[in-house]
Amino acid sequence: MSAQTDQPAAVTVLGLGPMGRALAAAFLDAGLRTTVWNRTPGRDTELVARGAVPASSAAEAVAAAPLTVVCVVNYDASDAVLRQDAVTAALKGRTVVNLSADIPDRARDAAEWAARHGVRYLDGAIMTPTPSIGTDDAVFLYSGSEELYGEHRPVLAALGGSHTHLGEDAGRAAAYDVALLDIFWTAMAGYSHALAVARAEGVTGAELAPFAQGIAAILPPLFTEFAADTDAGTYSGELNPITSAASTMAHVVHASEAHGIDASLMRVIEGQARRVIARGHGGDGYTRVAEVITGR
Amino acid sequence: MSAQTDQPAAVTVLGLGPMGRALAAAFLDAGLRTTVWNRTPGRDTELVARGAVPASSAAEAVAAAPLTVVCVVNYDASDAVLRQDAVTAALKGRTVVNLSADIPDRARDAAEWAARHGVRYLDGAIMTPTPSIGTDDAVFLYSGSEELYGEHRPVLAALGGSHTHLGEDAGRAAAYDVALLDIFWTAMAGYSHALAVARAEGVTGAELAPFAQGIAAILPPLFTEFAADTDAGTYSGELNPITSAASTMAHVVHASEAHGIDASLMRVIEGQARRVIARGHGGDGYTRVAEVITGR
Repeated sequence: MSAQTDQPAAVTVLGLGPMGRALAAAFLDAGLRTTVWNRTPGRDTELVARGAVPASSAAEAVAAAPLTVVCVVNYDASDAVLRQDAVTAALKGRTVVNLSADIPDRARDAAEWAARHGVRYLDGAIMTPTPSIGTDDAVFLYSGSEELYGEHRPVLAALGGSHTHLGEDAGRAAAYDVALLDIFWTAMAGYSHALAVARAEGVTGAELAPFAQGIAAILPPLFTEFAADTDAGTYSGELNPITSAASTMAHVVHASEAHGIDASLMRVIEGQARRVIARGHGGDGYTRVAEVITGR
Repeated sequence: MSAQTDQPAAVTVLGLGPMGRALAAAFLDAGLRTTVWNRTPGRDTELVARGAVPASSAAEAVAAAPLTVVCVVNYDASDAVLRQDAVTAALKGRTVVNLSADIPDRARDAAEWAARHGVRYLDGAIMTPTPSIGTDDAVFLYSGSEELYGEHRPVLAALGGSHTHLGEDAGRAAAYDVALLDIFWTAMAGYSHALAVARAEGVTGAELAPFAQGIAAILPPLFTEFAADTDAGTYSGELNPITSAASTMAHVVHASEAHGIDASLMRVIEGQARRVIARGHGGDGYTRVAEVITGR
C-alpha cells in the first residue's frame, strides 16, 4: 500500500454522477492513475477515453488504489456500496474519503462502521458546484483523523481549491455542509420567489439581477454580525428592530398573494418574527428568532 | 417656490424613526435647511441640536420647503399624514418623495391621490440599512415622473450613494423593493436557521461565518444565471438537477429536527422542489419551482 516512487499515485472514485465525474476528471488531469466505478454502468465512457481505468465491480475498484473517494447521492447509497462483504474486505487497511452529502449522524455512523472493520475513514463535504472542481474556486471540508487527512492531503489537492480539516469528530464536515446548504437553498428559494414577484410586476430578471447582486453584497458583513450576536446571545435591534422587519415581510406576502403567487415561505418567516414580537421582544433585532426556532 | 440663490435649498423630512433621522442628518450634513416633524414628539432633539428646524405640525413642516421626503413605517402611516386637509392644502404645487416601504399598489394609489390634489409625487425605496445613509453605500430607487426626478435629483443626492430612476409607473420602485426584501429576509432567515443548526452540532457562529461568506460569494453569478433562465423560460438542470437539490434540502430538515429545531422553512422549500419532481421535471434545474409558486 505504500507509495511506489516509480509510479503515479493511484486513486479510486466510486460514484460517477456529475460531481463524481468532475472529481475523477480532476484526478486524471493531475496525472493520477484513476480507477472509476458506478453502480449503473455506462457513466465512465468519457473518463475511460481520457485514461481512467474502468472497474467491473466496486470491490475491484477499491482494491486498485490505497485511497478511494466516494461521491454518491447520500449515505444510504454509500453504505450500500461500502458495506458489501467483498468491498469491506478489499477496503481493510485502505482509506475511504466519503464526499457524499448527508446529515452529521450518518457521517459519524459511517466512521464507526469503518473503525470496526479496519477501514481508514475520513468524512468530507464539497461546498461548491461541479464546475468549480479542479479550479481555485473549489471548497472541500474534511473531518475525522487529522493524521489520515495529512497523509492523503497531497492526492486530494489534485481536486483544486481550498481544503480544510475541521476536527476529529467525523460529523463535523457534514454539520458545516448542512448549515451551508441551509443558507444556500434558502437564499436561492428567496431569489426564485423574488423573480416571480418581479415578473408579475413587469420587472424582468435581467432588470432585477443587478440589484439582487447588491443584496448579495450586503450579506457578508451582516453574516459576521449575526454570528457574533448568536455566539454572545445578544439581539441588538437598535438600527433595525424586528417590528420593522416584520412589516416589510408582510409587504412581500401581500404583494405576492395579490398576484396569486404562493407566499408560504415568507409567511413562515414573518410568522416567526411575529412570535418574537408577541413574546415582547419587538425592539430586538431579527436574530432573536433563534429562540423561536430552537424552542427556547 | 423657486430656489432662492442666496439661500441654501430647503427640504422637509416627515417621520423621524431611525431611517428618517438618518435622512435628515444627511441633509443637514449637506448644508440644506432641513425642517423635521414626527407624529410622536421628542424624536427631533438631536437633529434640532444639529441645526434642523422643528415644525409643530405636518402642515407647517411641508409648507417650509418645496420638497418633502416622507419616511414612515408604511403607506397607512404616510396616507394618514399626507391626506389630512391642512397637509394636502399645503402640499399643493409642492413635491413629495415618499421613501416609506409598502407594496406596489399602495405606491400607485398614493401617486393617483397626489395627481388628483395637485401634489407633485415621486415614489421611492431605500435598499440599504440606516448606517449607509450619507455614504457611498446607500442605494435609492425612484419611480414616477422622470422630469420631477430630474428636478429634485440635486437635493436627493445629499443622501449619498446611488440613485436610480426605474420608470414612470409609480409602483416600480416598490416592486423592486418588495423583490429585494424577499431575497434579503429569506437569506437572513436561512442564515439564522443555519446558525442554530450549527450551534446544536457544536459549531460556533464565528466558525461558520467565514464559510457562510463563501456561500454569499457564489450567489451573484447564480443570480445572473437564474434571472436569464427565468426570462427565457429555460430550466437547465444538467449540472445540478432538482432531485439532487431536494436530497440536500431533506438533509437540512432531518439534521434540524434531530435537534428539535423547527425546519418549517426548509420543509416549504423542499416541498416545492418535490412538487416539481412529482410533475416529472426531476432532471430540471431548481428554477423550475417558479411554475409551482406561480400556480402555472
